[in-house]
Amino acid sequence: MTGQRATQETDLPTPPPAPGTSRPGGRTARTRAAVRDAVLTGLVEHGYPGLTVEYVAEHSGIHKTTLYRRWGNLEGLVVDALDLAGEDSWTPPDTGSLEGDLRALAQTTAASFEDPAAAAAPTAFVAAAFQSERAADALNAFYAQRFARCEVIVARAVSRHELDRRTDAGALVRAVISPLFLRLFITREPIDGTLAAQSADAALAAARAGVFNSPAESA
Amino acid sequence: MTGQRATQETDLPTPPPAPGTSRPGGRTARTRAAVRDAVLTGLVEHGYPGLTVEYVAEHSGIHKTTLYRRWGNLEGLVVDALDLAGEDSWTPPDTGSLEGDLRALAQTTAASFEDPAAAAAPTAFVAAAFQSERAADALNAFYAQRFARCEVIVARAVSRHELDRRTDAGALVRAVISPLFLRLFITREPIDGTLAAQSADAALAAARAGVFNSPAESA
Repeated sequence: MTGQRATQETDLPTPPPAPGTSRPGGRTARTRAAVRDAVLTGLVEHGYPGLTVEYVAEHSGIHKTTLYRRWGNLEGLVVDALDLAGEDSWTPPDTGSLEGDLRALAQTTAASFEDPAAAAAPTAFVAAAFQSERAADALNAFYAQRFARCEVIVARAVSRHELDRRTDAGALVRAVISPLFLRLFITREPIDGTLAAQSADAALAAARAGVFNSPAESA
Repeated sequence: MTGQRATQETDLPTPPPAPGTSRPGGRTARTRAAVRDAVLTGLVEHGYPGLTVEYVAEHSGIHKTTLYRRWGNLEGLVVDALDLAGEDSWTPPDTGSLEGDLRALAQTTAASFEDPAAAAAPTAFVAAAFQSERAADALNAFYAQRFARCEVIVARAVSRHELDRRTDAGALVRAVISPLFLRLFITREPIDGTLAAQSADAALAAARAGVFNSPAESA
């Protein structure tokens, strides 16, 4: 549910070529990953306002003219780093029950923010979105895709007759995550495993009560 | 639930004196409000990274040396603007039923972000908290106080026998708001009255299912 894998995953399955080039995989992929790592380090160290193309060039070892040619500008670099974070192979938990899946989803999300180093990159992306429209759009796309991947949790629950088939999967998974993100990014309150379990249970209770049933189909 | 009143409310009930002065109300209060307005305008126009004490001096008509003497630095100015936003007379809705109160809370929160001008100030505070520890602490205090004011909703519901007395009011009101704030500030998705009602109903269903019951007392 976070962009943190971006800083850890170096064995990305052949990402599509970066904008402005058609050369697949290999050196291009390594260049893109190096640039992404430099962008993340810079965002974490200086925030979006303090990040410069010069910084990314210095820390990636890629020449500034290459960065400008392939990514356009600083916003392009940040957006591509987010796009790349979304190209990982993350799949939601599959525990055999809806309650287990939702709890595991909340727990792994909460756990991923316990390590300040791992939390830094996703936090920097959320912060950058306040200063850059393009970063905001990329963040929107990143989370839309993450939540779409979670829809399988609901599909499995429906097939196990645990949930009404009219359940809006997107609303349900967002409900699981939102109490955690509220505290992490807005109210600046601590989160823990107990809160994660409560968030999952609250979303589950609401789903069972039919709150997330699609109004179009339930009408 | 937002800092937006800060830009609208000019008739604040004698706020406490600003730090570094003991002169109550009157001219001090007007100075503080003028400085607060300039801080908000600056945050909205330039964001925290672009805001300067010079800007606040120019737009408030208060001399720079006075600003430094009384607020210390830029962080002090932002923190005091947030403190002042929290000194309004906002009280949560009182509709006569728990469902009505929670829905009204969600609806008024969502509605307050429909007007981009009104949404700008709270958004700027949330953004500033990513760049300033002191702003983050002030935002935490602001929301803690807002949520504490909402606890009366739960107290009334308990007295009407609508809710278990073990219900954790803080958890419940945060659950009402969090799906809205997730979309506003993180995933950058649209919100509307339908989502607000759904968020309130989801929190209510979870509360009725006992999900927010305090574990200490329910043990």
